[in-house]
Amino acid sequence: MSDSAKKYTIAVIPGDGIGKEVTPWAQKALEKAAEGVAEFDYENFDLGAERYLRDGAILPEEEEERIKKTDAILLGAVGDPRIKAGILERGLLLKLRFDLDQYVNLRPSKLYKGVTSPLANPGDIDFVVVREGTEGLYCGAGGAVRRGTPNEVATEVSINTAYGVERVVRYAFQLAMKRRKHVTLVHKKNVLVNAGDMWQRIVDKVAEEYPEVSHDYLHIDATTIFMVSNPSRFDVILTDNLFGDIITDEAGAVVGGVGYSASGCINASDEYPSMFEPIHGSAPDIAGQNKANPTAAILSAAMLLRHLGFDEAAAKIDAAVEADIEELGSTTRSTDEVGRDILARM
Amino acid sequence: MSDSAKKYTIAVIPGDGIGKEVTPWAQKALEKAAEGVAEFDYENFDLGAERYLRDGAILPEEEEERIKKTDAILLGAVGDPRIKAGILERGLLLKLRFDLDQYVNLRPSKLYKGVTSPLANPGDIDFVVVREGTEGLYCGAGGAVRRGTPNEVATEVSINTAYGVERVVRYAFQLAMKRRKHVTLVHKKNVLVNAGDMWQRIVDKVAEEYPEVSHDYLHIDATTIFMVSNPSRFDVILTDNLFGDIITDEAGAVVGGVGYSASGCINASDEYPSMFEPIHGSAPDIAGQNKANPTAAILSAAMLLRHLGFDEAAAKIDAAVEADIEELGSTTRSTDEVGRDILARM
Ligand SMILES: CC(C)[C@H](C(=O)O)[C@@H](O)C(=O)O
Ligand SMILES: CC(C)[C@H](C(=O)O)[C@@H](O)C(=O)O
Repeated sequence: MSDSAKKYTIAVIPGDGIGKEVTPWAQKALEKAAEGVAEFDYENFDLGAERYLRDGAILPEEEEERIKKTDAILLGAVGDPRIKAGILERGLLLKLRFDLDQYVNLRPSKLYKGVTSPLANPGDIDFVVVREGTEGLYCGAGGAVRRGTPNEVATEVSINTAYGVERVVRYAFQLAMKRRKHVTLVHKKNVLVNAGDMWQRIVDKVAEEYPEVSHDYLHIDATTIFMVSNPSRFDVILTDNLFGDIITDEAGAVVGGVGYSASGCINASDEYPSMFEPIHGSAPDIAGQNKANPTAAILSAAMLLRHLGFDEAAAKIDAAVEADIEELGSTTRSTDEVGRDILARM
Repeated sequence: MSDSAKKYTIAVIPGDGIGKEVTPWAQKALEKAAEGVAEFDYENFDLGAERYLRDGAILPEEEEERIKKTDAILLGAVGDPRIKAGILERGLLLKLRFDLDQYVNLRPSKLYKGVTSPLANPGDIDFVVVREGTEGLYCGAGGAVRRGTPNEVATEVSINTAYGVERVVRYAFQLAMKRRKHVTLVHKKNVLVNAGDMWQRIVDKVAEEYPEVSHDYLHIDATTIFMVSNPSRFDVILTDNLFGDIITDEAGAVVGGVGYSASGCINASDEYPSMFEPIHGSAPDIAGQNKANPTAAILSAAMLLRHLGFDEAAAKIDAAVEADIEELGSTTRSTDEVGRDILARM
């Protein structure tokens, strides 16, 4: 360790299922890439299904406060079939995204050389989805009356604010300036007229400040078509929380599987730590079998490094991953083999 | 016309853009297929963008009353770039679906022989999406405060009732009994916990009445992945209004384009007429150029016939379409050429 290396604390939340298998590799990649430029202290958090089943805790306040004091978070995956859907997702993963005001959910999609896309003619795929992370249908508003009776009514409320939309729109345009300078707003404004109209107005307004960036609009349904028929048309896709969730999984599929897709839940105002995670879930069907691909988790470590300003260290990971996929992407390897292979190239 | 032919009144709403070009072919196919078994009177409705721009009318009450008295509706497409998004969609298309209580939005997806799917290994694709049509985020609940200011808040409310969900769930299980006996519920119950939980409970309850039908559950995001990686896993997909909108467009893409995808907005209690339409939109970019593929519209005429009980007549259309696609699906033809070719085979 050089004396000039900066010190950071990283919260590590492996979570559930394959999250526990891939996160150690993300951590190792982080460590190796940052050698000599940054020094990381890790704080491990035992959060997720096992903990919940053991003592009922999901995200105790004291632990959340400690997480808030770290510089960044590495997360694996959350969700377990033994636990009712929503409990861990809402109580842990979404609670962190919301409480830490991680309003930019950044999800790059790239078709790597060596990966076989399920598409016949994928073309060059290289876009980023900027998904709003703290509003919309994810805010947990809604409820039910007469639950379990024939007269039950259940509601879900999407809350969208100009404040919340404008900051993520601005982020998307700034990002587009560093890329191919095109933003596609994705929504369903012909049906969700209140929220859609607000998104469109704010995009039109912010776009005036970025005359070099062109922008267009697609309905979410049409977007799912282009994602299959012409994914290379996209540069920056800007969308809300739910549509972003949906379109990034489809994007993962067209670039050959969510095993290659990393994401950052970013608090772009740096008030709280940002969180980096593969977009895949806990995959209970293959958990514990040393089968999961750790590449997405390792790429999320690169996003973490870039977020902290260590572009060169991040580039080391990216290059190792690219080389690994190009050479060995089509082979069947265990979690540990892929992890070791990538590390060996760094 | 034989004396025993039954008489029906069909409302025809060509609507906007390519809707005007493809609907006449649907009507011709209907006419030809039903020769000798049913007699159709057509009532044409001048509704859509042109009408709205001319006299401001979207769906006048008197016209809606006349539509309600018909036996079925053939619709083209609705939407025009000159008109603010949502006005015609909400005021005409969705108003009909809701007022006529068309709670089953039925959308079959099939990969026809002769069609090149954009997927590398599509496999056998043959499933039906049963999309709820009268609830969810489509009900138009929501609003905005402080519109146009930095403090604007816009909401969209998804309303879901046990009454509305149970009837469409039941429809899906009945349909599955006539098919490969598998229902996949698609939702996002790990986030939309109120509505998702209700859907799942009702599915579990209704499933007990159909012990031969197996069922599983997928999140909407995961569904977009399987739609690309393994679409043949699906038989009956059961989902809400918004998720159904999204997944059927993606399904259209994987079977080679929405040009082959028809849909029925069905009032399964037969209180009001059901409505049949291609799932594609008005496609303003190619409107008026005799380029749009009328196949989806023609297939929607077959769905109409089947709905009225004329299975043989419907099968004539389906067979002509299948043969046409197998032989000529890969050629470039005008709207009228495709229409004539299909009619010629009937
Ligand atoms: C696990 C779930 C709550 C989460 C989401 O919907 O955001 C996941 O699908 C994702 O995309 O990160
Ligand atoms: C035009 C639009 C309102 C409509 C919908 O969202 O239902 C269309 O996309 C469809 O799928 O029929």
